[in-house]
Amino acid sequence: MKKVNIENKFALFSERWSPKVIAQMNNYQFKLVKFQGKFVWHEHADTDETFIVIDGTMQIEFKDNIVTLQKGEMIVIPKGVEHRPSAEKECKAMLVEPGGTVNTGDTGGTLTADNDVWI
Amino acid sequence: MKKVNIENKFALFSERWSPKVIAQMNNYQFKLVKFQGKFVWHEHADTDETFIVIDGTMQIEFKDNIVTLQKGEMIVIPKGVEHRPSAEKECKAMLVEPGGTVNTGDTGGTLTADNDVWI
Repeated sequence: MKKVNIENKFALFSERWSPKVIAQMNNYQFKLVKFQGKFVWHEHADTDETFIVIDGTMQIEFKDNIVTLQKGEMIVIPKGVEHRPSAEKECKAMLVEPGGTVNTGDTGGTLTADNDVWI
Repeated sequence: MKKVNIENKFALFSERWSPKVIAQMNNYQFKLVKFQGKFVWHEHADTDETFIVIDGTMQIEFKDNIVTLQKGEMIVIPKGVEHRPSAEKECKAMLVEPGGTVNTGDTGGTLTADNDVWI
């Protein structure tokens, strides 16, 4: 039973759009991700997904609005809701979602990251 | 679909040992809690539980060791593992656990907080 230091874990990788698992609670995982630019539009048909911004600023576009999230802010995206994360400058966020959730959801494509990669 | 600012939510209450729900993802809830002093020994028989320290320092005693967590650190306590949270000075933490999880687990007593209290 070990604690996890979030900043120390972020220091271990530099790849963007490639979530790294740092902890698991039941079948849910806490994943760290760095990103810059615009992701792909996608949805997760079977699960809600949580973003918690650890450092920086990000946007999440929805079909009818855009939400800007800053350090210390979080949002839960309901299952089945199309969204597109983006950031002008590199942003660091923690995702909370069931293990096995694919970053690109039902969209797929070249930005699809390997799953269950622990750091 | 609204974002949540964690610090702004903490500013809305002062009670200790009384988790407030700020977001829900599927059947899991994100809860904010302020506390100082020692809690009761307890376990959650049916679920893991996550602590993320937002501000301050806390300890979690286990039967065979003590873990100290500071701001930006987190731990997942496996189901069925007895533990006792404590803090010398007031600490602010975010809990992540299934909705319905009772703060005192199987122990009960006067520190048992109402559940599903949103703020």
